[in-house]
Amino acid sequence: MRVRNRKGAPEMMAANTQYVVENPEAFKGSWAEKFGNQNPIHIEVGSGKGAFITGMAQKHPDINYIAIDMQLTVLSYALDKVLELDLPNVQLLHVDGSALTNYFAPGEVDLVYLNFSDPWPKSRHEKRRLTYKDFLKTYETILVDNGQIHFKTDNRGLFEYSLASMSQYGMILRQVWLDLHVDEAFAEKNVMTEYEAKFSSKGQVIYRVEAQFQS
Amino acid sequence: MRVRNRKGAPEMMAANTQYVVENPEAFKGSWAEKFGNQNPIHIEVGSGKGAFITGMAQKHPDINYIAIDMQLTVLSYALDKVLELDLPNVQLLHVDGSALTNYFAPGEVDLVYLNFSDPWPKSRHEKRRLTYKDFLKTYETILVDNGQIHFKTDNRGLFEYSLASMSQYGMILRQVWLDLHVDEAFAEKNVMTEYEAKFSSKGQVIYRVEAQFQS
Ligand SMILES: C[S@@+](CC[C@H](N)C(=O)[O-])C[C@H]1O[C@@H](n2cnc3c(N)ncnc32)[C@H](O)[C@@H]1O
Ligand SMILES: C[S@@+](CC[C@H](N)C(=O)[O-])C[C@H]1O[C@@H](n2cnc3c(N)ncnc32)[C@H](O)[C@@H]1O
Repeated sequence: MRVRNRKGAPEMMAANTQYVVENPEAFKGSWAEKFGNQNPIHIEVGSGKGAFITGMAQKHPDINYIAIDMQLTVLSYALDKVLELDLPNVQLLHVDGSALTNYFAPGEVDLVYLNFSDPWPKSRHEKRRLTYKDFLKTYETILVDNGQIHFKTDNRGLFEYSLASMSQYGMILRQVWLDLHVDEAFAEKNVMTEYEAKFSSKGQVIYRVEAQFQS
Repeated sequence: MRVRNRKGAPEMMAANTQYVVENPEAFKGSWAEKFGNQNPIHIEVGSGKGAFITGMAQKHPDINYIAIDMQLTVLSYALDKVLELDLPNVQLLHVDGSALTNYFAPGEVDLVYLNFSDPWPKSRHEKRRLTYKDFLKTYETILVDNGQIHFKTDNRGLFEYSLASMSQYGMILRQVWLDLHVDEAFAEKNVMTEYEAKFSSKGQVIYRVEAQFQS
Protein backbone atom coordinates (compact mmCIF):
# COMPACT_ATOMS: atom_id res chain seq x y z
CA MET A 1 0.00 0.00 0.00
CA ARG A 2 1.31 3.38 -0.99
CA VAL A 3 -0.60 6.48 0.07
CA ARG A 4 -0.40 10.03 -1.20
CA ASN A 5 1.76 12.32 0.92
CA ARG A 6 -0.20 14.30 3.47
CA LYS A 7 0.64 17.94 3.72
CA GLY A 8 1.98 18.89 7.11
CA ALA A 9 2.35 15.29 8.27
CA PRO A 10 6.04 15.63 9.29
CA GLU A 11 5.28 18.75 11.31
CA MET A 12 2.29 17.11 12.94
CA MET A 13 4.40 14.11 13.95
CA ALA A 14 7.17 16.33 15.30
CA ALA A 15 4.66 18.29 17.38
CA ASN A 16 3.32 15.22 19.18
CA THR A 17 6.29 13.52 20.71
CA GLN A 18 4.13 12.25 23.58
CA TYR A 19 2.82 9.69 21.05
CA VAL A 20 5.41 9.68 18.31
CA VAL A 21 8.73 8.14 19.31
CA GLU A 22 11.50 10.57 18.42
CA ASN A 23 14.74 8.65 18.70
CA PRO A 24 13.66 5.02 18.97
CA GLU A 25 17.17 3.57 19.43
CA ALA A 26 17.21 5.32 22.82
CA PHE A 27 14.37 3.13 24.09
CA LYS A 28 15.87 -0.23 23.29
CA GLY A 29 15.55 -2.10 26.57
CA SER A 30 13.61 0.66 28.33
CA TRP A 31 10.14 0.70 26.81
CA ALA A 32 8.65 -0.06 30.21
CA GLU A 33 10.08 3.24 31.48
CA LYS A 34 8.73 5.04 28.44
CA PHE A 35 5.23 3.72 29.19
CA GLY A 36 5.74 4.22 32.90
CA ASN A 37 4.58 0.71 33.83
CA GLN A 38 5.45 -2.99 33.52
CA ASN A 39 2.51 -3.99 31.33
CA PRO A 40 3.03 -6.36 28.41
CA ILE A 41 4.11 -4.79 25.14
CA HIS A 42 2.33 -5.75 21.91
CA ILE A 43 3.51 -4.40 18.59
CA GLU A 44 1.91 -4.25 15.17
CA VAL A 45 4.30 -4.25 12.25
CA GLY A 46 2.80 -2.46 9.25
CA SER A 47 0.03 -0.88 11.29
CA GLY A 48 -1.28 1.43 8.58
CA LYS A 49 -3.80 4.02 9.71
CA GLY A 50 -4.12 2.54 13.18
CA ALA A 51 -7.73 1.34 13.49
CA PHE A 52 -6.54 -1.98 14.92
CA ILE A 53 -4.03 -0.70 17.42
CA THR A 54 -6.27 2.09 18.74
CA GLY A 55 -9.20 -0.34 18.97
CA MET A 56 -7.06 -2.84 20.87
CA ALA A 57 -5.65 -0.11 23.13
CA GLN A 58 -9.15 0.98 24.13
CA LYS A 59 -10.21 -2.61 24.83
CA HIS A 60 -7.06 -3.49 26.76
CA PRO A 61 -5.85 -0.53 28.82
CA ASP A 62 -3.47 -2.83 30.70
CA ILE A 63 -1.45 -3.63 27.58
CA ASN A 64 1.00 -1.26 25.91
CA TYR A 65 0.76 -1.05 22.13
CA ILE A 66 3.32 0.14 19.62
CA ALA A 67 2.18 0.82 16.06
CA ILE A 68 5.02 0.47 13.59
CA ASP A 69 4.94 1.63 10.00
CA MET A 70 7.59 2.82 7.61
CA GLN A 71 5.30 5.31 5.89
CA LEU A 72 5.08 8.60 7.72
CA THR A 73 1.83 9.67 6.10
CA VAL A 74 0.08 6.48 7.10
CA LEU A 75 1.28 6.83 10.66
CA SER A 76 0.05 10.44 10.78
CA TYR A 77 -3.49 9.12 10.28
CA ALA A 78 -2.93 6.76 13.20
CA LEU A 79 -1.83 9.82 15.18
CA ASP A 80 -5.16 11.52 14.42
CA LYS A 81 -6.93 8.63 16.14
CA VAL A 82 -4.58 8.46 19.11
CA LEU A 83 -4.95 12.21 19.70
CA GLU A 84 -8.70 12.05 19.45
CA LEU A 85 -8.96 9.09 21.84
CA ASP A 86 -6.13 10.28 24.09
CA LEU A 87 -4.64 6.84 24.60
CA PRO A 88 -1.77 6.67 27.11
CA ASN A 89 -0.96 3.06 26.17
CA VAL A 90 -0.07 3.70 22.51
CA GLN A 91 3.18 4.77 20.90
CA LEU A 92 3.82 5.29 17.20
CA LEU A 93 7.10 4.20 15.71
CA HIS A 94 8.19 5.32 12.26
CA VAL A 95 10.74 2.63 11.35
CA ASP A 96 11.24 -0.32 9.04
CA GLY A 97 10.14 -3.70 10.44
CA SER A 98 13.36 -5.29 9.23
CA ALA A 99 15.35 -3.23 11.75
CA LEU A 100 13.37 -3.98 14.92
CA THR A 101 16.37 -5.38 16.78
CA ASN A 102 17.73 -1.82 16.82
CA TYR A 103 14.74 -0.65 18.83
CA PHE A 104 13.84 -3.58 21.06
CA ALA A 105 15.99 -5.63 23.41
CA PRO A 106 15.74 -9.45 23.32
CA GLY A 107 12.52 -10.57 25.01
CA GLU A 108 11.15 -7.03 25.36
CA VAL A 109 8.05 -7.66 23.23
CA ASP A 110 5.20 -9.95 24.31
CA LEU A 111 3.26 -10.33 21.07
CA VAL A 112 3.64 -9.38 17.40
CA TYR A 113 0.63 -8.56 15.25
CA LEU A 114 0.73 -8.59 11.47
CA ASN A 115 -2.41 -7.45 9.69
CA PHE A 116 -3.00 -7.43 5.94
CA SER A 117 0.68 -7.18 5.21
CA ASP A 118 1.65 -6.26 1.68
CA PRO A 119 1.45 -9.54 -0.30
CA TRP A 120 4.44 -9.11 -2.64
CA PRO A 121 3.15 -11.90 -4.90
CA LYS A 122 6.20 -12.18 -7.15
CA SER A 123 8.76 -14.78 -6.05
CA ARG A 124 11.60 -12.33 -6.53
CA HIS A 125 10.03 -10.12 -3.84
CA GLU A 126 9.71 -12.95 -1.32
CA LYS A 127 12.22 -11.29 1.02
CA ARG A 128 9.97 -8.28 1.44
CA ARG A 129 7.06 -10.30 2.82
CA LEU A 130 6.73 -9.69 6.56
CA THR A 131 6.56 -13.46 7.11
CA TYR A 132 9.80 -14.21 5.26
CA LYS A 133 12.25 -16.09 7.43
CA ASP A 134 14.52 -13.10 8.08
CA PHE A 135 11.56 -11.18 9.49
CA LEU A 136 10.58 -14.19 11.60
CA LYS A 137 14.12 -14.25 12.97
CA THR A 138 13.80 -10.56 13.88
CA TYR A 139 10.49 -11.10 15.68
CA GLU A 140 11.88 -14.13 17.49
CA THR A 141 14.82 -12.09 18.77
CA ILE A 142 12.74 -9.32 20.32
CA LEU A 143 9.92 -11.57 21.57
CA VAL A 144 9.70 -13.34 24.90
CA ASP A 145 10.41 -17.10 24.86
CA ASN A 146 7.60 -18.97 23.13
CA GLY A 147 6.32 -15.66 21.85
CA GLN A 148 3.54 -15.55 19.30
CA ILE A 149 2.66 -13.88 16.03
CA HIS A 150 -1.01 -13.22 15.32
CA PHE A 151 -1.52 -12.69 11.62
CA LYS A 152 -4.65 -11.76 9.66
CA THR A 153 -5.00 -11.29 5.92
CA ASP A 154 -7.43 -11.59 3.06
CA ASN A 155 -4.64 -12.54 0.68
CA ARG A 156 -4.72 -16.26 -0.14
CA GLY A 157 -1.26 -16.44 -1.65
CA LEU A 158 0.37 -14.63 1.24
CA PHE A 159 -1.46 -16.77 3.77
CA GLU A 160 -0.47 -20.03 2.05
CA TYR A 161 3.10 -18.79 1.95
CA SER A 162 3.09 -17.64 5.57
CA LEU A 163 1.77 -20.91 7.00
CA ALA A 164 4.54 -22.81 5.24
CA SER A 165 7.19 -20.20 6.07
CA MET A 166 6.31 -20.13 9.77
CA SER A 167 6.14 -23.91 9.96
CA GLN A 168 9.45 -24.35 8.14
CA TYR A 169 11.03 -21.81 10.46
CA GLY A 170 10.10 -24.11 13.35
CA MET A 171 7.04 -22.26 14.63
CA ILE A 172 3.99 -24.16 15.76
CA LEU A 173 0.55 -23.23 14.47
CA ARG A 174 -1.64 -23.02 17.53
CA GLN A 175 -4.83 -22.16 15.70
CA VAL A 176 -5.84 -21.44 12.11
CA TRP A 177 -8.96 -19.68 10.80
CA LEU A 178 -9.84 -19.99 7.11
CA ASP A 179 -12.94 -17.79 7.40
CA LEU A 180 -12.48 -15.70 10.50
CA HIS A 181 -15.77 -13.88 10.41
CA VAL A 182 -17.89 -17.02 10.69
CA ASP A 183 -16.35 -17.65 14.13
CA GLU A 184 -18.91 -16.06 16.44
CA ALA A 185 -16.86 -16.67 19.57
CA PHE A 186 -13.91 -14.83 18.06
CA ALA A 187 -16.06 -11.97 16.74
CA GLU A 188 -16.48 -10.60 20.26
CA LYS A 189 -12.78 -10.03 20.75
CA ASN A 190 -11.93 -9.24 17.14
CA VAL A 191 -10.85 -5.69 16.36
CA MET A 192 -11.07 -4.94 12.65
CA THR A 193 -8.29 -3.23 10.76
CA GLU A 194 -8.99 -0.73 7.97
CA TYR A 195 -8.22 -3.38 5.35
CA GLU A 196 -10.27 -6.00 7.12
CA ALA A 197 -13.36 -3.77 7.10
CA LYS A 198 -12.86 -2.98 3.44
CA PHE A 199 -12.21 -6.50 2.18
CA SER A 200 -14.76 -8.29 4.31
CA SER A 201 -17.46 -5.87 3.22
CA LYS A 202 -16.63 -6.96 -0.33
CA GLY A 203 -17.30 -10.56 0.69
CA GLN A 204 -13.65 -11.62 0.89
CA VAL A 205 -12.75 -14.39 3.30
CA ILE A 206 -10.40 -13.34 6.12
CA TYR A 207 -7.66 -15.78 7.19
CA ARG A 208 -5.97 -15.78 10.60
CA VAL A 209 -3.27 -17.76 12.36
CA GLU A 210 -1.74 -17.76 15.83
CA ALA A 211 1.79 -19.13 15.54
CA GLN A 212 4.32 -19.67 18.30
CA PHE A 213 8.09 -19.79 18.42
CA GLN A 214 9.66 -22.82 20.07
CA SER A 215 12.39 -22.40 22.64
CA MET B 1 -19.80 -41.31 4.81
CA ARG B 2 -22.01 -44.34 5.22
CA VAL B 3 -23.15 -46.20 2.11
CA ARG B 4 -25.94 -48.70 1.68
CA ASN B 5 -24.84 -52.32 1.74
CA ARG B 6 -24.21 -53.77 -1.67
CA LYS B 7 -25.64 -57.18 -2.31
CA GLY B 8 -22.96 -59.74 -3.06
CA ALA B 9 -20.10 -57.44 -2.07
CA PRO B 10 -18.50 -59.89 0.40
CA GLU B 11 -18.59 -62.71 -2.17
CA MET B 12 -17.16 -60.43 -4.84
CA MET B 13 -14.31 -59.42 -2.56
CA ALA B 14 -13.61 -63.05 -1.62
CA ALA B 15 -13.50 -64.05 -5.27
CA ASN B 16 -10.81 -61.52 -6.19
CA THR B 17 -7.93 -62.18 -3.85
CA GLN B 18 -5.45 -61.02 -6.50
CA TYR B 19 -6.57 -57.50 -5.61
CA VAL B 20 -8.21 -57.86 -2.21
CA VAL B 21 -5.78 -58.64 0.57
CA GLU B 22 -7.05 -61.67 2.48
CA ASN B 23 -5.02 -61.85 5.67
CA PRO B 24 -3.25 -58.51 5.86
CA GLU B 25 -1.25 -59.27 9.03
CA ALA B 26 0.66 -61.80 6.97
CA PHE B 27 2.12 -59.07 4.77
CA LYS B 28 3.53 -56.88 7.49
CA GLY B 29 7.11 -56.32 6.36
CA SER B 30 6.69 -58.14 3.04
CA TRP B 31 4.53 -55.92 0.84
CA ALA B 32 7.36 -55.70 -1.69
CA GLU B 33 7.10 -59.47 -2.15
CA LYS B 34 3.35 -59.23 -2.50
CA PHE B 35 3.76 -56.67 -5.30
CA GLY B 36 6.73 -58.57 -6.71
CA ASN B 37 8.96 -55.49 -6.91
CA GLN B 38 10.78 -52.87 -4.84
CA ASN B 39 8.73 -49.88 -5.97
CA PRO B 40 7.64 -47.26 -3.43
CA ILE B 41 4.42 -47.96 -1.58
CA HIS B 42 1.80 -45.22 -1.28
CA ILE B 43 -1.33 -45.79 0.75
CA GLU B 44 -4.64 -43.95 0.91
CA VAL B 45 -6.46 -44.17 4.22
CA GLY B 46 -10.22 -43.86 3.73
CA SER B 47 -10.02 -44.41 0.00
CA GLY B 48 -13.76 -44.69 -0.63
CA LYS B 49 -14.75 -45.86 -4.08
CA GLY B 50 -11.22 -45.68 -5.43
CA ALA B 51 -11.25 -43.02 -8.17
CA PHE B 52 -8.10 -41.44 -6.74
CA ILE B 53 -6.05 -44.56 -6.19
CA THR B 54 -6.92 -46.10 -9.55
CA GLY B 55 -6.23 -42.79 -11.30
CA MET B 56 -2.88 -42.50 -9.56
CA ALA B 57 -2.03 -46.13 -10.31
CA GLN B 58 -2.62 -45.57 -14.01
CA LYS B 59 -0.51 -42.42 -14.03
CA HIS B 60 2.33 -43.94 -12.00
CA PRO B 61 2.83 -47.61 -12.91
CA ASP B 62 6.14 -47.58 -11.02
CA ILE B 63 4.47 -46.92 -7.68
CA ASN B 64 2.50 -49.46 -5.68
CA TYR B 65 -0.79 -48.27 -4.24
CA ILE B 66 -2.83 -49.66 -1.38
CA ALA B 67 -6.39 -48.44 -0.95
CA ILE B 68 -7.55 -48.76 2.64
CA ASP B 69 -11.13 -48.44 3.81
CA MET B 70 -13.05 -49.93 6.70
CA GLN B 71 -16.29 -50.17 4.74
CA LEU B 72 -16.50 -53.31 2.65
CA THR B 73 -19.19 -51.99 0.33
CA VAL B 74 -17.18 -48.89 -0.51
CA LEU B 75 -14.12 -50.97 -1.23
CA SER B 76 -16.15 -53.27 -3.50
CA TYR B 77 -16.78 -50.27 -5.78
CA ALA B 78 -13.05 -49.64 -5.85
CA LEU B 79 -12.66 -53.31 -6.84
CA ASP B 80 -14.98 -52.73 -9.83
CA LYS B 81 -12.55 -50.11 -11.09
CA VAL B 82 -9.41 -52.15 -10.45
CA LEU B 83 -10.91 -55.16 -12.25
CA GLU B 84 -11.95 -53.06 -15.22
CA LEU B 85 -8.56 -51.37 -15.52
CA ASP B 86 -6.59 -54.49 -14.61
CA LEU B 87 -4.06 -52.68 -12.44
CA PRO B 88 -1.18 -54.81 -11.13
CA ASN B 89 0.05 -52.02 -8.85
CA VAL B 90 -3.07 -51.77 -6.67
CA GLN B 91 -4.14 -53.71 -3.60
CA LEU B 92 -7.30 -53.20 -1.58
CA LEU B 93 -7.16 -53.48 2.17
CA HIS B 94 -10.31 -53.75 4.26
CA VAL B 95 -9.07 -52.60 7.67
CA ASP B 96 -9.36 -49.72 10.11
CA GLY B 97 -6.79 -46.96 9.69
CA SER B 98 -6.17 -46.88 13.43
CA ALA B 99 -4.61 -50.37 13.25
CA LEU B 100 -2.13 -49.84 10.44
CA THR B 101 0.87 -50.85 12.55
CA ASN B 102 -0.56 -54.39 12.48
CA TYR B 103 -0.23 -54.49 8.70
CA PHE B 104 2.86 -52.45 7.92
CA ALA B 105 6.39 -52.66 9.33
CA PRO B 106 8.17 -49.49 10.42
CA GLY B 107 9.32 -47.53 7.36
CA GLU B 108 7.49 -49.79 4.90
CA VAL B 109 5.28 -47.02 3.49
CA ASP B 110 6.62 -44.12 1.41
CA LEU B 111 3.64 -41.77 1.39
CA VAL B 112 0.23 -41.48 3.05
CA TYR B 113 -2.73 -39.91 1.25
CA LEU B 114 -5.80 -38.67 3.05
CA ASN B 115 -8.63 -37.42 0.87
CA PHE B 116 -11.88 -35.87 2.06
CA SER B 117 -11.70 -37.68 5.36
CA ASP B 118 -14.84 -37.72 7.47
CA PRO B 119 -14.89 -34.34 9.27
CA TRP B 120 -16.30 -35.42 12.66
CA PRO B 121 -17.07 -31.79 13.53
CA LYS B 122 -18.03 -32.35 17.17
CA SER B 123 -15.18 -31.92 19.67
CA ARG B 124 -16.10 -35.13 21.41
CA HIS B 125 -15.38 -37.01 18.17
CA GLU B 126 -11.95 -35.44 17.71
CA LYS B 127 -10.23 -38.80 18.18
CA ARG B 128 -11.96 -40.22 15.11
CA ARG B 129 -10.52 -37.61 12.76
CA LEU B 130 -7.81 -39.17 10.60
CA THR B 131 -5.50 -36.26 11.46
CA TYR B 132 -5.85 -36.67 15.23
CA LYS B 133 -2.48 -37.12 16.91
CA ASP B 134 -2.89 -40.85 17.50
CA PHE B 135 -3.44 -41.37 13.77
CA LEU B 136 -0.41 -39.18 13.01
CA LYS B 137 1.63 -41.38 15.36
CA THR B 138 0.45 -44.46 13.45
CA TYR B 139 1.37 -42.97 10.07
CA GLU B 140 4.74 -41.85 11.41
CA THR B 141 5.51 -45.39 12.58
CA ILE B 142 4.88 -47.06 9.24
CA LEU B 143 6.34 -44.27 7.08
CA VAL B 144 9.93 -43.86 6.00
CA ASP B 145 11.98 -41.21 7.83
CA ASN B 146 10.78 -37.73 6.93
CA GLY B 147 7.74 -39.31 5.34
CA GLN B 148 4.88 -37.15 4.13
CA ILE B 149 1.12 -36.95 4.34
CA HIS B 150 -0.72 -35.40 1.41
CA PHE B 151 -4.17 -34.32 2.49
CA LYS B 152 -7.04 -32.84 0.46
CA THR B 153 -10.46 -31.79 1.69
CA ASP B 154 -13.28 -29.36 1.09
CA ASN B 155 -14.08 -29.21 4.79
CA ARG B 156 -12.91 -25.95 6.32
CA GLY B 157 -13.21 -27.04 9.94
CA LEU B 158 -11.31 -30.27 9.37
CA PHE B 159 -8.60 -28.48 7.44
CA GLU B 160 -8.13 -25.79 10.11
CA TYR B 161 -7.95 -28.55 12.70
CA SER B 162 -5.53 -30.66 10.68
CA LEU B 163 -3.02 -27.87 10.02
CA ALA B 164 -2.83 -27.16 13.75
CA SER B 165 -2.81 -30.85 14.69
CA MET B 166 0.00 -31.69 12.27
CA SER B 167 2.02 -28.65 13.30
CA GLN B 168 1.56 -29.36 17.01
CA TYR B 169 2.60 -32.96 16.43
CA GLY B 170 5.90 -31.62 15.11
CA MET B 171 5.26 -32.00 11.39
CA ILE B 172 6.40 -29.32 8.98
CA LEU B 173 4.01 -27.90 6.41
CA ARG B 174 5.88 -28.00 3.14
CA GLN B 175 3.14 -26.47 1.03
CA VAL B 176 -0.44 -25.35 1.59
CA TRP B 177 -3.19 -24.72 -0.98
CA LEU B 178 -6.31 -22.82 0.04
CA ASP B 179 -7.95 -23.11 -3.38
CA LEU B 180 -6.33 -26.05 -5.08
CA HIS B 181 -8.14 -25.81 -8.38
CA VAL B 182 -6.85 -22.35 -9.22
CA ASP B 183 -3.31 -23.76 -9.28
CA GLU B 184 -2.83 -24.51 -12.97
CA ALA B 185 0.57 -26.10 -12.49
CA PHE B 186 -0.87 -28.55 -9.98
CA ALA B 187 -3.92 -29.31 -12.11
CA GLU B 188 -1.80 -31.37 -14.48
CA LYS B 189 -0.79 -33.83 -11.84
CA ASN B 190 -3.95 -33.69 -9.77
CA VAL B 191 -6.11 -36.80 -9.71
CA MET B 192 -9.60 -36.05 -8.48
CA THR B 193 -11.35 -38.18 -5.90
CA GLU B 194 -15.09 -38.88 -6.01
CA TYR B 195 -15.72 -36.28 -3.31
CA GLU B 196 -13.44 -33.76 -4.96
CA ALA B 197 -15.36 -33.98 -8.24
CA LYS B 198 -18.66 -33.65 -6.42
CA PHE B 199 -17.76 -30.74 -4.15
CA SER B 200 -15.74 -28.74 -6.62
CA SER B 201 -18.54 -28.94 -9.19
CA LYS B 202 -20.72 -27.31 -6.52
CA GLY B 203 -18.23 -24.44 -6.36
CA GLN B 204 -16.62 -25.49 -3.06
CA VAL B 205 -13.02 -24.54 -2.49
CA ILE B 206 -10.61 -27.49 -2.16
CA TYR B 207 -7.82 -27.30 0.42
CA ARG B 208 -4.58 -29.28 0.29
CA VAL B 209 -1.45 -29.65 2.38
CA GLU B 210 1.81 -31.56 2.07
CA ALA B 211 3.13 -32.15 5.58
CA GLN B 212 6.32 -33.91 6.60
CA PHE B 213 7.42 -35.76 9.71
CA GLN B 214 10.70 -34.67 11.27
CA SER B 215 13.30 -37.22 12.26
C1 LIG C 1 -1.63 -3.15 3.25
S1 LIG C 1 -1.22 -2.07 4.57
C2 LIG C 1 -2.18 -2.72 5.94
C3 LIG C 1 -2.42 -1.73 6.99
C4 LIG C 1 -3.18 -2.22 8.25
N1 LIG C 1 -2.41 -3.24 8.99
C5 LIG C 1 -4.56 -2.76 7.94
O1 LIG C 1 -4.76 -3.97 8.08
O2 LIG C 1 -5.45 -1.97 7.57
C6 LIG C 1 0.44 -2.56 4.93
C7 LIG C 1 1.22 -1.55 5.73
O3 LIG C 1 2.46 -2.13 6.07
C8 LIG C 1 3.48 -1.16 5.97
N2 LIG C 1 4.75 -1.87 5.77
C9 LIG C 1 5.07 -2.69 4.77
N3 LIG C 1 6.32 -3.16 4.91
C10 LIG C 1 6.79 -2.65 6.07
C11 LIG C 1 8.01 -2.77 6.77
N4 LIG C 1 9.02 -3.51 6.30
N5 LIG C 1 8.16 -2.09 7.94
C12 LIG C 1 7.15 -1.32 8.41
N6 LIG C 1 5.97 -1.18 7.79
C13 LIG C 1 5.79 -1.83 6.63
C14 LIG C 1 3.05 -0.29 4.80
O4 LIG C 1 3.66 0.97 4.88
C15 LIG C 1 1.53 -0.26 4.99
O5 LIG C 1 1.13 0.85 5.77
C1 LIG D 1 -15.92 -39.08 3.02
S1 LIG D 1 -15.27 -40.56 2.39
C2 LIG D 1 -14.07 -40.02 1.20
C3 LIG D 1 -13.73 -41.06 0.19
C4 LIG D 1 -12.64 -40.71 -0.84
N1 LIG D 1 -11.34 -40.55 -0.19
C5 LIG D 1 -12.98 -39.49 -1.67
O1 LIG D 1 -12.29 -38.47 -1.50
O2 LIG D 1 -13.91 -39.53 -2.50
C6 LIG D 1 -14.31 -41.14 3.75
C7 LIG D 1 -13.98 -42.62 3.71
O3 LIG D 1 -13.09 -42.88 4.79
C8 LIG D 1 -13.41 -44.14 5.35
N2 LIG D 1 -12.88 -44.14 6.73
C9 LIG D 1 -13.25 -43.30 7.73
N3 LIG D 1 -12.57 -43.61 8.85
C10 LIG D 1 -11.74 -44.64 8.53
C11 LIG D 1 -10.81 -45.41 9.27
N4 LIG D 1 -10.57 -45.16 10.57
N5 LIG D 1 -10.14 -46.39 8.64
C12 LIG D 1 -10.40 -46.65 7.33
N6 LIG D 1 -11.27 -45.96 6.60
C13 LIG D 1 -11.94 -44.98 7.19
C14 LIG D 1 -14.91 -44.21 5.24
O4 LIG D 1 -15.34 -45.57 5.28
C15 LIG D 1 -15.16 -43.54 3.89
O5 LIG D 1 -15.18 -44.48 2.83
